Amino acid sequence: MKTLRVGLADRGYDILIGGGLLDQAGTLIADVRTPSKAVVLTDDNVWPLYGERLTKALGTLPHEVIVLPHGEQTKSAAVYANVLSCCASYALTRSDIIIAFGGGVIGDLAGFVAATYMRGIDFVQIPTTLLAQVDSSVGGKTAIDLPEGKNLVGAFHQPVLVVADTDLLQTLPPREQAGGMAEVIKYGAIFDEALFALLEAHPTWETITPLLDDVVYTCCDWKRQVVERDERDTGDRMLLNFGHTFGHAIEAHGQYTTYIHGEGVALGMVLAAKAGICRGITPLGTDDRLESLCDSFGLPMTDRFTAEALTAHLTLDKKRAGSTLRLILLHRIGDGFVQPLTVDEVLSLTEALCHDR
Amino acid sequence: MKTLRVGLADRGYDILIGGGLLDQAGTLIADVRTPSKAVVLTDDNVWPLYGERLTKALGTLPHEVIVLPHGEQTKSAAVYANVLSCCASYALTRSDIIIAFGGGVIGDLAGFVAATYMRGIDFVQIPTTLLAQVDSSVGGKTAIDLPEGKNLVGAFHQPVLVVADTDLLQTLPPREQAGGMAEVIKYGAIFDEALFALLEAHPTWETITPLLDDVVYTCCDWKRQVVERDERDTGDRMLLNFGHTFGHAIEAHGQYTTYIHGEGVALGMVLAAKAGICRGITPLGTDDRLESLCDSFGLPMTDRFTAEALTAHLTLDKKRAGSTLRLILLHRIGDGFVQPLTVDEVLSLTEALCHDR
Repeated sequence: MKTLRVGLADRGYDILIGGGLLDQAGTLIADVRTPSKAVVLTDDNVWPLYGERLTKALGTLPHEVIVLPHGEQTKSAAVYANVLSCCASYALTRSDIIIAFGGGVIGDLAGFVAATYMRGIDFVQIPTTLLAQVDSSVGGKTAIDLPEGKNLVGAFHQPVLVVADTDLLQTLPPREQAGGMAEVIKYGAIFDEALFALLEAHPTWETITPLLDDVVYTCCDWKRQVVERDERDTGDRMLLNFGHTFGHAIEAHGQYTTYIHGEGVALGMVLAAKAGICRGITPLGTDDRLESLCDSFGLPMTDRFTAEALTAHLTLDKKRAGSTLRLILLHRIGDGFVQPLTVDEVLSLTEALCHDR
Repeated sequence: MKTLRVGLADRGYDILIGGGLLDQAGTLIADVRTPSKAVVLTDDNVWPLYGERLTKALGTLPHEVIVLPHGEQTKSAAVYANVLSCCASYALTRSDIIIAFGGGVIGDLAGFVAATYMRGIDFVQIPTTLLAQVDSSVGGKTAIDLPEGKNLVGAFHQPVLVVADTDLLQTLPPREQAGGMAEVIKYGAIFDEALFALLEAHPTWETITPLLDDVVYTCCDWKRQVVERDERDTGDRMLLNFGHTFGHAIEAHGQYTTYIHGEGVALGMVLAAKAGICRGITPLGTDDRLESLCDSFGLPMTDRFTAEALTAHLTLDKKRAGSTLRLILLHRIGDGFVQPLTVDEVLSLTEALCHDR
């Protein structure tokens, strides 16, 4: 088991990474909190596979399980309200906990419930997907979607513990494994050329599998550093949005069904690399290197959108402040930076990129 | 105009108190923020009376107005989700603002929208009721209700400015004036015997009216001190809940239609005084002094509930931690304190009090 400590002033917490941790969940939680009950939020993919093991691991801790449909549509205001009512009916109090047991959707939703139920109670993340283990379960960003856009509502609320059992990643559908790799590739692209090179040397799920504990640890460690410097996402935490400005627009255009998050991010990263090349900042060929790595992990690199399709969604980006958008570009692989651009600049850039293809 | 500065580490803000401030709202906001647009949340009582004046005061600031039905039912998850969607449709960004223009319901809802839209944007409170001016608009507690109980969902999110125009209080229905006085009486009971005595010397709306600017200022100043010491409500901010543990249960039992908030608090304060007397802490007669003052301001002192009716609601109190409830009791008028009690103790106390009557 590897341990990372996220050192925030008053609310530091551990990220535990390793195979088989699920079966120790109860004792690991007992090391940090002693609730009198818990609500477990999970989905109908995860629970049938691993529910029994979690229940056994929680031992004598009384808990209610809420099994939600998998998929992005669960991150809605309606489901959020229902889950809150379940917590109230179960008489969950401020000294109890919520356990997020699933991927990014469950983690984001459970985190937002925990952030706002009785103005905030503690929660534990047990991420079951690669994407959640390397990204969404760490750092305290919680959210639900609106019909108008993804993650438009949420709060900053740090978990009290993250338990990442890397064994669980082997039962993920290949598409989810690839989607998670998009975020892993992102860390390489913006922070860590060595990681990027490691991925290029092991460019398939099979070849990277023996290294997954290290890879998850490395990604979480980068995220930890960023979150410690900029918990509230007003400075260089924005680097983590590399590929996400375009990616979210691509996902929204596909109505969150055509592309999963990692697929949007992969396409978005290639677009962002091209945008940097357009502006004469990113070295030529960086887009090809990104595209080739994403492709070899099975991320679909054939896009199905036009500039016009993206522009409507780009104007609603959360990173927008007035008429300025902050796009993440690359000086080179391993070195991302925040580039403020006007909405109009981003829109004409988008048109140029999409017409270029 | 009187000014109070709430001194929080990174997010201090001013409370401005005085007659006629509504007409200066635009310039007062411009002194602290320069948004490119605003969303005004208000209700169908306030807007017909004062909407034109606010619109004129906002001058060239583009703003969308959302007029909601007045009353507690507006603080629902469904209305919350609709308001968020309106903000997104209006393309409100993180550098824009929300203006809460109404009483406690509007302030709590607008504050929670501001706390969570794009994980938090700035908001301005323009409270129009006495209750909101002396209590709910200051301190950053925001909330919505669940079918299971009031204020069960929310966040701590401080406004960037509070503009309390005391002239507006004169058009309040007498019942709302009395309801606000319940909170004023509360400050006297827990903090300030001189304020309590002042109210006893001017025990009607007509006689207190000339002193309202001072009274609102005094109450906000007490609240300011408490919020500065304990923003997150884990210590002596709980004192502000004097009368509220019973009060919320009374309101819930009346399904939020029989009693308005201040009426529940008034009845709850008398019950809490009696509870202190029962336990041999509060001087005999304190309950009568409270009851008589509430009564003279027109707060209904005839209750319509039984111990059984209250107990179901008491067990869901947010102040509960595991099996412990924190009740606010009085050493004497002007001196409240936090008394942890088990849920069972509170329930048998409730039975004793209610059978006593």
